Amino acid sequence: MKPCEEEEEEGGAAAAGGGGDPWKECAEVAVQLALRAGQIIRKALTEEKQVSTKTSAADLVTETDHFVENLIISVLKEKFPSHRFIAEESTAAGSKCVLTDSPTWIIDPVDGTCNFVHRFPTVAVSIGFAVNKELEFGVIYHCTEERLYTGRRGQGAFCNDKRLQVSKETDISKALILTEIGPKRDPATLKLFLGNIERLLKAQAHGVRVIGSSTLALCHLASGAADAYYQFGLHCWDLAAATVIIREAGGTVIDTSGGPLDLMSCRVIAAGTREMAMFIAQEIQTIHYGRDDEN
Amino acid sequence: MKPCEEEEEEGGAAAAGGGGDPWKECAEVAVQLALRAGQIIRKALTEEKQVSTKTSAADLVTETDHFVENLIISVLKEKFPSHRFIAEESTAAGSKCVLTDSPTWIIDPVDGTCNFVHRFPTVAVSIGFAVNKELEFGVIYHCTEERLYTGRRGQGAFCNDKRLQVSKETDISKALILTEIGPKRDPATLKLFLGNIERLLKAQAHGVRVIGSSTLALCHLASGAADAYYQFGLHCWDLAAATVIIREAGGTVIDTSGGPLDLMSCRVIAAGTREMAMFIAQEIQTIHYGRDDEN
Repeated sequence: MKPCEEEEEEGGAAAAGGGGDPWKECAEVAVQLALRAGQIIRKALTEEKQVSTKTSAADLVTETDHFVENLIISVLKEKFPSHRFIAEESTAAGSKCVLTDSPTWIIDPVDGTCNFVHRFPTVAVSIGFAVNKELEFGVIYHCTEERLYTGRRGQGAFCNDKRLQVSKETDISKALILTEIGPKRDPATLKLFLGNIERLLKAQAHGVRVIGSSTLALCHLASGAADAYYQFGLHCWDLAAATVIIREAGGTVIDTSGGPLDLMSCRVIAAGTREMAMFIAQEIQTIHYGRDDEN
Repeated sequence: MKPCEEEEEEGGAAAAGGGGDPWKECAEVAVQLALRAGQIIRKALTEEKQVSTKTSAADLVTETDHFVENLIISVLKEKFPSHRFIAEESTAAGSKCVLTDSPTWIIDPVDGTCNFVHRFPTVAVSIGFAVNKELEFGVIYHCTEERLYTGRRGQGAFCNDKRLQVSKETDISKALILTEIGPKRDPATLKLFLGNIERLLKAQAHGVRVIGSSTLALCHLASGAADAYYQFGLHCWDLAAATVIIREAGGTVIDTSGGPLDLMSCRVIAAGTREMAMFIAQEIQTIHYGRDDEN
């Protein structure tokens, strides 16, 4: 398996024999692409948009989502022709969403599309990378605030150059919790979604925030600005990059059942501490969304 | 009535005879104080905090709230000794919260205290100013993003130097809605709070956001990044500055009954259009919070 073709061709020391830091160039390219995509999204935020819907009236997509995804994938395909890709809009257009052992890029070109449509300034680019089904690095760029979140397995997590550290809170009555609504809006789903918020507020959580971007909410968690995040109905491209960042910041990312994270299961709890994650797992009720790899 | 003592002493042209631009210096002082307070809050965000509770376990206050409020009021009292003050922490400590015809400063030293406690970076200083019970100007400073929102009656609203313009959306099914939880967390209040979100999502609103700062949510509305905001349980210091900014950006600020805004009623609907505000007024159920001027 060739980690980063170009690096090897150019005889980069890190890639020699696949040892050292085999995915260094890939991570660097991801950062450059996230910054470039962010610039495009920032500009597009000021312009008129053509908006279409996907799975529901609240599941939106714009030409910028497509443009940025095509840009990122075309650059990566040229640099790393043997790599595979899972990306939001390609999947919506029918591409299979299956994680193999191959080096795989997992991309959300515009996370927070509804925010983007409304010019609500909480919008990100998310680029994750997995090899042998293990997440190696993640890059998330907050387009309007120009904050770059990065995490590499075993090497820590950062916001710009500042090291990230999760909250150590274990007590729900001192916790700030983040969640997102998810695309399904049928009455039964709404009841469950709001019921879960009710349970956490009755457990005396300080508050619940809904900011409209799963990846940026997860970055807040990684930076210790919130104590837990949970969601049903998010996708592997919302989770991949953020999971590395949170784990490298010392946090826990698990399934909503309390078991190990399944990247394709469309559900997650992330928290600064395992105790907090397990408390949330016991409190919340499941909202069924199917799996990313079964569509 | 002396609008701005200092200006008059120094013979400022604008203050001559009370004509022209009588509150210009007051507005300029408000901007300087908001920036200074923001600097203090930014620094305090990185430090350990002593947190106390007020009306409920979720109604928090820190030494920074007190310090910033005291700083703002002491500077203003020296400059404008005849003016009156309504401010969050003074009111919590027992000061009467009554709006008279006198020039009155209405101050929230740290809006988003729960966010502040968690270092969740959505925290603002809000300074409003009313004369003859009419709001003359408002200044809101987003401390971490260093965005200064200002509005002066008849002179427009701005974020830094960019003119603000509300959304023109009238259709709920294309709307992004903002709200906040409020301090009461008893089961009946939570049912109403969540029931209102449910009604708006069933009416197919694109989404609902809860960011933890009423004033900054109202600034998002003023900038057109959301189509409506409603809340029960907010206070006159959350509303005063923002109301001027929204109205000067072309928006509507009314009571949740659909009638005129009552600054002391602890409830509000703000929207880009009157149609949107009236739709929200018809959809949501009242949560009773008493009045600011009856405590």
